Amino acid sequence: MSDALNAVLDRIDAELPASLDRLFDLLRIPSISTDPAHAGDVARAADWLVQDLESIGFSARADQTAGHPMVVAKGGAGEGPHLLFYGHYDVQPVDPLDLWDRPPFEPELQDTPNGKVIRARGASDDKGQLMTFVEACRAWVAVHGSLPVKLTFCLEGEEESGSPSLVPYLEGNRDALRADLALICDTGLFDAQTPAITTMLRGLLGEEVVIHGPERDLHSGHFGGAAINPARVLARILADLHDDQGRITVPDFYDGVPELPEDLRAQWGGLGFDADAFLGDVGLSQPAGEAGRSALEMIWSRPTCEINGMVSGYTGAGFKTVLPAQASAKVSFRLVGQQDPHKLRESFREFVRARLPEDCRVEFQEHGASPASVMETAHPAFEAARGALSQEWPQPAAFVGAGGSIPIAGYFKTILGMDSMLVGFSKEDDQIHSPNEKYDLASYHRGIRSWARIIEAVAKA
Amino acid sequence: MSDALNAVLDRIDAELPASLDRLFDLLRIPSISTDPAHAGDVARAADWLVQDLESIGFSARADQTAGHPMVVAKGGAGEGPHLLFYGHYDVQPVDPLDLWDRPPFEPELQDTPNGKVIRARGASDDKGQLMTFVEACRAWVAVHGSLPVKLTFCLEGEEESGSPSLVPYLEGNRDALRADLALICDTGLFDAQTPAITTMLRGLLGEEVVIHGPERDLHSGHFGGAAINPARVLARILADLHDDQGRITVPDFYDGVPELPEDLRAQWGGLGFDADAFLGDVGLSQPAGEAGRSALEMIWSRPTCEINGMVSGYTGAGFKTVLPAQASAKVSFRLVGQQDPHKLRESFREFVRARLPEDCRVEFQEHGASPASVMETAHPAFEAARGALSQEWPQPAAFVGAGGSIPIAGYFKTILGMDSMLVGFSKEDDQIHSPNEKYDLASYHRGIRSWARIIEAVAKA
Repeated sequence: MSDALNAVLDRIDAELPASLDRLFDLLRIPSISTDPAHAGDVARAADWLVQDLESIGFSARADQTAGHPMVVAKGGAGEGPHLLFYGHYDVQPVDPLDLWDRPPFEPELQDTPNGKVIRARGASDDKGQLMTFVEACRAWVAVHGSLPVKLTFCLEGEEESGSPSLVPYLEGNRDALRADLALICDTGLFDAQTPAITTMLRGLLGEEVVIHGPERDLHSGHFGGAAINPARVLARILADLHDDQGRITVPDFYDGVPELPEDLRAQWGGLGFDADAFLGDVGLSQPAGEAGRSALEMIWSRPTCEINGMVSGYTGAGFKTVLPAQASAKVSFRLVGQQDPHKLRESFREFVRARLPEDCRVEFQEHGASPASVMETAHPAFEAARGALSQEWPQPAAFVGAGGSIPIAGYFKTILGMDSMLVGFSKEDDQIHSPNEKYDLASYHRGIRSWARIIEAVAKA
Repeated sequence: MSDALNAVLDRIDAELPASLDRLFDLLRIPSISTDPAHAGDVARAADWLVQDLESIGFSARADQTAGHPMVVAKGGAGEGPHLLFYGHYDVQPVDPLDLWDRPPFEPELQDTPNGKVIRARGASDDKGQLMTFVEACRAWVAVHGSLPVKLTFCLEGEEESGSPSLVPYLEGNRDALRADLALICDTGLFDAQTPAITTMLRGLLGEEVVIHGPERDLHSGHFGGAAINPARVLARILADLHDDQGRITVPDFYDGVPELPEDLRAQWGGLGFDADAFLGDVGLSQPAGEAGRSALEMIWSRPTCEINGMVSGYTGAGFKTVLPAQASAKVSFRLVGQQDPHKLRESFREFVRARLPEDCRVEFQEHGASPASVMETAHPAFEAARGALSQEWPQPAAFVGAGGSIPIAGYFKTILGMDSMLVGFSKEDDQIHSPNEKYDLASYHRGIRSWARIIEAVAKA
């Protein structure tokens, strides 16, 4: 380890309390991008980041888009590759609010049996993660006056709401954003001891389906039996989406789904992934996907179809004998390999239409369509980062897959012609997208130190 | 027509504006019994009725129960049979509120292409209906100083929330409530020209099903594929409830379901029921029940299974890639003939449990269980009332079935040993249980006159 790096790491350790204060300031802003009522808060979070990046010497601005702002900042110097860092400052909604132990936007450092955690919406996804990188830069600049690499920040405010402005923004700002390699911090550790570089990401296709039947809600006694019930129609369609083996029945769905290469299967087998513990952590015991697949395959390399939400009729307290006029569901597909999200959207819609009784009509609303990504691990930065991470953590870093969808890596490749390296420090038990989200203090602290190491390693690679 | 009756009918016509004012006072009270937040309003509606019945010479009181009050009043005289009148003063919830053209508890008399209507929640179900009887009594008392029959009122405040206090109340007050015949005003006209006495009522079994999977909401990317999705499990169960012929698949469900007697089938065939118009009124064209049954059979004499509500996961604006921890549905069955609601509840629960994957558990909540009712039309009051109604309306009165469930008739028979006669004046297009509920002014006016006639006819029967 170089003296230059050593000084930066010492600075990070000394600055930890102050860096937590800064993160808490950002966590206090309820930047829920999917809810129009919070648009002002999303803008406020963008402005906060602009100010913070300017305070460490970056030239920063919040670019307006048709939706929420894109925070862009430039700085650094040196002979190494020009890096682009991506994170997102918007967060998921917080409902059901009554399942939170404390207000989601009042962050707190809490002691738990597994160590200290930062509790707040966005602590892990993604404000805590993006601030690990910002703090690593701050320490480099504080100790050495500058970074050893040229760096562009690109921080998004729409990641949790389907990123409607992202592609137009990237297409309209190709020159300003071009770099040699993108760093993306929105992924996790393999486990508490083992850091990971994610090299396979599933894509995502989101669809909302609304089935309309009678032109108004009806009394189920007066009309029940004779009038079509759209909730029943929807239930049939949703039930039909999987067969008894857990395979998805949408026509041509498995076109472009590859079998896992044997070398990767062997590497994953050696990770010691504990499917029982993974499921046991959330109160489950049986892998629920395709028969004959391992749990790790199910979440890393197999496509899925999930009902993310559904609603029809009366759902309040008590009972109401209503025959509902409509029923709706939000359905998403995780995609792998060469699955084509646009073809599958049409195939899914045809699947639904084919099951529609004469007296029903259907409306669709699209919520994102991104293909899967497979990273170019031959880039020397990957081995450099693997080495740097392995020095910081108890176990050597692994190349892993990820079940979640981070379409940005695909867009960087297709629009900006740039490879991406995904490194992050979240844990499976962070409860992202759920009540009581948290980020381990160890993830935050070691995450900052990890980025400080990676910056130096990549600068020299 | 007797002079005595003639004078009452004249009084009713002259009093119509004042009788509307009284109904509007009652409609302004938001007595939603299923919502605990409106308990005070339900009590206020009960007190309003006590005062109004006292003002026409009845001794009235609001009896406390474990739930909402029961309004009981006694009065009248004469040699004829002792009648008990039943109606309910609670109303359905009003959501979705944004589909109402005006506030649901600010009643208004509106001109429509089909004549004047009273627009408000409860106008038809059941405040407008119960006030037709109260106003008929008021006119009799105003003109003649008393009624020609002994009369007990029994007005319920829990009809729209499963009547949890009804059976204990009837069992605890057998002597106070005993009468020769019950009159129940919670049913409809056959059509705008044709009054009806309802002689067959479907029963009702209500169940709420909650499927629990993971112990918390999960990220559908991180866990999707491996973790069981309770929304998918629920959709399968709901989809399984009917076969391709529209028959209900719960084991032993059709035990005790009789075929329609030929004479009743012939009588119903002669009613000129227009299934196309019935469904067309709500934007539908195809009878959706069991293959091979007429629409009238489907709603009057066949059992049903309906999803009244279902909800899981994220249902707000936008999209959230959550894998929900639970999914729930409210399901009701309309019962006919000798179907046993208690046996069927167990059979339904077994049906659900049999379809539950190992990693899910289910909770059930019961919401009412009442068998179907078939009335004793040999009682001379039935022919007397049929004659009286036929004199008031353009077309002769018919004996009909009804799809809705009015368990009270069964309870009067089993607990009080008393037959019931169901007469009402609502119309299919009244939008009860829906936004913009209304009651035709013609239903209200002719309804009051009809009861004045029936009271005299039954007194002489």
